[in-house]
Amino acid sequence: MRLAIDVMGGDKGPCALIEGAARAVVDHPGLELVLFGSRQQITAELLRLPRPLAAATSRLAIHDVTSSVAMTATAAWALRRGQSTSMAQMLRCVAQGDAQAGVSVGNTAALVALARRELGMLDGMSRPAISTAIPARRGRRCYLLDLGANVDSPPHRLVEFALMGAAMARQVDQIERPRVALLNVGAESTKGSLSVREADRLLRESAARLPFAYLGYAEGGDIFQGELDVIVCDGFAGNAVLKASEGLAGMLVERVQSAFASRFRGRLASWIARPILTHLKQELDPVRYNGASLLGLQGIVVKSHGGTQAEGFYYAIRRAMQEVDNSLPERLAKRWACYG
Amino acid sequence: MRLAIDVMGGDKGPCALIEGAARAVVDHPGLELVLFGSRQQITAELLRLPRPLAAATSRLAIHDVTSSVAMTATAAWALRRGQSTSMAQMLRCVAQGDAQAGVSVGNTAALVALARRELGMLDGMSRPAISTAIPARRGRRCYLLDLGANVDSPPHRLVEFALMGAAMARQVDQIERPRVALLNVGAESTKGSLSVREADRLLRESAARLPFAYLGYAEGGDIFQGELDVIVCDGFAGNAVLKASEGLAGMLVERVQSAFASRFRGRLASWIARPILTHLKQELDPVRYNGASLLGLQGIVVKSHGGTQAEGFYYAIRRAMQEVDNSLPERLAKRWACYG
Repeated sequence: MRLAIDVMGGDKGPCALIEGAARAVVDHPGLELVLFGSRQQITAELLRLPRPLAAATSRLAIHDVTSSVAMTATAAWALRRGQSTSMAQMLRCVAQGDAQAGVSVGNTAALVALARRELGMLDGMSRPAISTAIPARRGRRCYLLDLGANVDSPPHRLVEFALMGAAMARQVDQIERPRVALLNVGAESTKGSLSVREADRLLRESAARLPFAYLGYAEGGDIFQGELDVIVCDGFAGNAVLKASEGLAGMLVERVQSAFASRFRGRLASWIARPILTHLKQELDPVRYNGASLLGLQGIVVKSHGGTQAEGFYYAIRRAMQEVDNSLPERLAKRWACYG
Repeated sequence: MRLAIDVMGGDKGPCALIEGAARAVVDHPGLELVLFGSRQQITAELLRLPRPLAAATSRLAIHDVTSSVAMTATAAWALRRGQSTSMAQMLRCVAQGDAQAGVSVGNTAALVALARRELGMLDGMSRPAISTAIPARRGRRCYLLDLGANVDSPPHRLVEFALMGAAMARQVDQIERPRVALLNVGAESTKGSLSVREADRLLRESAARLPFAYLGYAEGGDIFQGELDVIVCDGFAGNAVLKASEGLAGMLVERVQSAFASRFRGRLASWIARPILTHLKQELDPVRYNGASLLGLQGIVVKSHGGTQAEGFYYAIRRAMQEVDNSLPERLAKRWACYG
């Protein structure tokens, strides 16, 4: 398997990304990565890798690109002037079939716009949505989308997101008839913005033909209840909810940790607290780490957090690998082709 | 002190509300509550109170009202036909000065519309905002608003929210120059919806005259970092973030609890786990419980969760009492009168 990785952009520079990429090839013997970025910078970072990771550099190819998309760039700039950036070249590599998927930590707006142009959309989808599965009660997960590919979303696009999310839940989690809801400020049909109410009307109208169970409105807390498989919202609200949840999860883990530390010390603390904290962190890792998929494209693109560490980037690469194994875009397209 | 309480509406019926109200008068000897709702239902609930609470019923007056605002009612319905409901009468009681503050668990849209008409807005404010202080790192708190009084907000209203939030942080938390930011999908100035970008422009333009430090954009995770005192957003995103945070906090407390329970049993578990869990829950209580203020009105109105238990309603009453002690509306109005 060969993936294309844009190592430019991101808040922490390429260092953590290259470490994450090296770990991924060490752990997956069949994996090759093409790193898009400044050869000089990448080579310097590769030389700094600790010994066990350094062994993997033969499967890390470098595609030398000197220009990159700034975090402050707009989508319009990326489309007009971004052709030679590491992000655009990484995406072209995926579009041409030289890599099976792409991963970037860069500017989201630019990534969405360039991915749409380079890879094209699947039939019936007008714009990509960013989605991730959030861990919920009873070991379940809830696909939340859009997480920020679009800052606002007209009703028909929310309907497309519902189709994409449901296809993910069926394809990845084998849920026969996913339960789908629209995020709103209350469960009553009189509430919410015009756009959400119109999307609700469209979904109710076509409920009989939908390849999922449409359950009406959900509120923010329902994400974690384990009773819904997909929650659809505009990218602004989804992004705020995801980042707030990550922030809160991080704060709570710290608080549990310090509550332990103030009560038990040394060995006793290790014996009592460590296994519980490890367990808690593992359960929260999907919220904190696993990157997010750009859905609706004719190809696989994973967006990793801008501020990610090596571990987070490693998970984003793993996610791209899983989507390749799943032949995700082709299968998603088939799932919604029967509809409409 | 005399408060007006609307005990109709809410997902659980008046039972929990009346228990919460009774606890509040037991704990606060100078407090009197006027309960707006069906005399028959309220009397039946009062008779069912356990003995220590039953003693307080002499300070629980009943204002018999048979009609109430349904959770499915629209703001327009409430304004046209809701004059005789328990919610409207409770608000009128506050407007006429017969009570110093009002509390309701009812329909948010109706409460906002009726409160605006019955109490009127403070000078310079066009619409109420719902706000609460969210516990953050380093013992700090962050005022988040709007939490759902409005489903979308034009730029000038986001600026008003910034003024209201900053006035709260100064008045309640004694922060000399509150740090205020706008919620957005990224920190870069090129990002976000038109409305947020225009509000950012307005705030930057008048930065020198603002009674707070405007710091630009914040992301969802910043709510919990303890580096901002106020985060402003439209009511849709704020509502989603608040409810998602409550849901996640609840799920995490459960997970820590069950991780303990699976590792330690009986007395050992009580000794190790209970103090830590108690501490954690106390820290999260403000997120889960304390109700939210309707800011910008010429009077004090607290909105408690629709699905609240007795304890949550008790906290909402306490919040209203604190705002009375603080003479909140008058002082807030003075704080922003100097501006603009």
